Amino acid sequence: MADTVDSSVVVSGFSRTVIDGGITAPAGFQSAAIHCGIKARAGVLDLVVLAADKPAAAAALFTTNIVKAAPVLVSQQHLERSKGWTRAIVVNSGCANACTGDKGMQDAVEMAAATAKGLGCGAEEVLVSSTGVIGVQLKMDRVRGGIKAATGALARGKGEEAARAIMTTDLSPKSGAVEVSTARGTFRIGGMAKGAGMIEPMMATMLGFITTDADVPPALLQRALREAAKDTFNAITVDGEASTNDSLFALASGASGVRVDEDLYPALVEGLLAVARPLALDIVRGGEGATKLIAVNVHGARTEEDARRVARTIANSPLVKTAVHGADPNWGRILAAAGRSGTMFDVQRVTVRVGGVRLFENGLPHDEAAPQAAEHLKGKEITIDVGLGEHPGSSATVWTCDLSAEYVRINGEYRT
Amino acid sequence: MADTVDSSVVVSGFSRTVIDGGITAPAGFQSAAIHCGIKARAGVLDLVVLAADKPAAAAALFTTNIVKAAPVLVSQQHLERSKGWTRAIVVNSGCANACTGDKGMQDAVEMAAATAKGLGCGAEEVLVSSTGVIGVQLKMDRVRGGIKAATGALARGKGEEAARAIMTTDLSPKSGAVEVSTARGTFRIGGMAKGAGMIEPMMATMLGFITTDADVPPALLQRALREAAKDTFNAITVDGEASTNDSLFALASGASGVRVDEDLYPALVEGLLAVARPLALDIVRGGEGATKLIAVNVHGARTEEDARRVARTIANSPLVKTAVHGADPNWGRILAAAGRSGTMFDVQRVTVRVGGVRLFENGLPHDEAAPQAAEHLKGKEITIDVGLGEHPGSSATVWTCDLSAEYVRINGEYRT
Repeated sequence: MADTVDSSVVVSGFSRTVIDGGITAPAGFQSAAIHCGIKARAGVLDLVVLAADKPAAAAALFTTNIVKAAPVLVSQQHLERSKGWTRAIVVNSGCANACTGDKGMQDAVEMAAATAKGLGCGAEEVLVSSTGVIGVQLKMDRVRGGIKAATGALARGKGEEAARAIMTTDLSPKSGAVEVSTARGTFRIGGMAKGAGMIEPMMATMLGFITTDADVPPALLQRALREAAKDTFNAITVDGEASTNDSLFALASGASGVRVDEDLYPALVEGLLAVARPLALDIVRGGEGATKLIAVNVHGARTEEDARRVARTIANSPLVKTAVHGADPNWGRILAAAGRSGTMFDVQRVTVRVGGVRLFENGLPHDEAAPQAAEHLKGKEITIDVGLGEHPGSSATVWTCDLSAEYVRINGEYRT
Repeated sequence: MADTVDSSVVVSGFSRTVIDGGITAPAGFQSAAIHCGIKARAGVLDLVVLAADKPAAAAALFTTNIVKAAPVLVSQQHLERSKGWTRAIVVNSGCANACTGDKGMQDAVEMAAATAKGLGCGAEEVLVSSTGVIGVQLKMDRVRGGIKAATGALARGKGEEAARAIMTTDLSPKSGAVEVSTARGTFRIGGMAKGAGMIEPMMATMLGFITTDADVPPALLQRALREAAKDTFNAITVDGEASTNDSLFALASGASGVRVDEDLYPALVEGLLAVARPLALDIVRGGEGATKLIAVNVHGARTEEDARRVARTIANSPLVKTAVHGADPNWGRILAAAGRSGTMFDVQRVTVRVGGVRLFENGLPHDEAAPQAAEHLKGKEITIDVGLGEHPGSSATVWTCDLSAEYVRINGEYRT
């Protein structure tokens, strides 16, 4: 399971190396993380401004939920108005500013305007992101002061602090960076993310932020971000829920001087994957009540879309997730979930493997192998492989976590 | 919530009354339930034959899962060959005969043939149904003896015993019957069902059987069964899983002499609903780990399909189900689930009510009402109402249960 970044990898003419520094590892970016009082506990970081030295090419993906939080709507508008050129992103934790009506929209607009004022740019050049409780208004007096302080405290080398400021109930900050060396020069990519399923009721958000000092036009950056997200942030699930605030942003400063065109596009995507995948898998590892990371690999499908649909249905099946939790090599549940996914296949040609151990093939169980599969399930990193029988066929992987009684406790025993 | 059958109801020219007797309450049917040894424990009923005195009009709905058990495939073939005229249904519990390859198909065919031999009819006039463990072969020596004994012991008045014979891990038998009085005469409808989510790992089936002594042609019976199932057996969910064996059968003996045509069709559907709804809701009440029955009502949708999709997404949301379990009036989770259902609506026009208490309207929360909604959630029968703002709009109801730590214990701590 490719769940860690190899320290140095050479792929068809370029190599990448893991480095420190998170979102400010690439040149041309500064950040400041502060406590302004959105969160009650003194000193807990709750606001961060990420700023590019000059307008950076921007790309973003937002939640597909019809119910979109105010900062999502404002960021969408600003990206459109600025034609994909952005100076900064202002992010707060502790309040999602979702389902907050007209006041919520005004507050999100004001967050952008206040950040723009501090940086001396247009409001449409600022994107906004919020995470925390739904249905509660922002304490704008605190936010105003916070943005003023943060825009005055921008510095390089503070990327990992920024990753702490966007946490809600995440168990740990999620930050990473790589350096990509190509024939045309070296560029860097940094990233941070937050998200833990919905650990606290009404705490509901996956946020991701990626920076690079490669020189990439907005449209190409958007394409690369979408491609990288498909197999990372869009290939994970904790409980199948989609939040009102989910957002993934990428900014490209161009400060490395390395121009990314179609020739270097594969290097960019590979670099984005190298940063995004460990962040995405960390979200699943830290999922509510999670004790195991599960990779569901589906191959031999007629289309990639089919493979992804089957993998996602298995990954969201409560019966599969509880079986893994209990280290039960229950191939029947895996097969039944695949069968209800809406994808056509021939059961006689299906193979189900757990930890590489074949449990079902040619229409028949291999229960003699169950004890060996059960041993694998006692570990922390689980693989489920389902072959649908097409050769060569298409494949997809979705990552999920197990479903434990702790999930129910976290989400059911808490009172709003 | 219409979760019980009113003892006597008059609807536009016909009335219905609850009666005893289950599937043999209607004239023209006999049954026999026996222990043949599929289940290990002595005396526990595990096989039932339901027989019509002469060929009865038959209708059926089967699982939409691609992975279909052998008895489902055989019943589909037999219904087609007999053009919808059936003498008997043979049902076993304790073994699903699913994922059992060619041998499983041969066994299901032999079950029909053995029953046909005992009754002196054609094999294609017998339908087959199985429930229990997936991936295990039937003990055919026991089944053969069982079918011989059962076909020799058919009797009237044994309908409620039959309901016990189809149980796997159901907490109680599910049986019911009504008498429908019309201007053209009186007919009866009886029914039984089993299902409890998937209480034991790899125990996976919802089965329903309905009999009537009305005289209904197969095509009209199929239409009525489909219509009645839409708002009963097809409107319930425990954990969103669909099994390999799910089946719902209806047989019409015609023995009452009451001919059902388009004029009496509403009386037939109403009678089917009156039998099917309490059976369906009992399945949810007895769902694995369930402590509460939840009715999710969606109204003001653009289409009935939209209403049903939103209701089903809310009903399957683990965050909504855990919130109800914890008596937390968490309207944000309900709204977020509606938003990710794939249905378009305007959030500003959405209303969310729990137990009739308005919690979200005109884009804004009404958290002052949360304590009152929390009181409602402490009960056993919960209602969630979501209005999407279209007037008059379409509506749909889906029933579900809460998600408890007991669900995880049942499904995760068991080992195969």
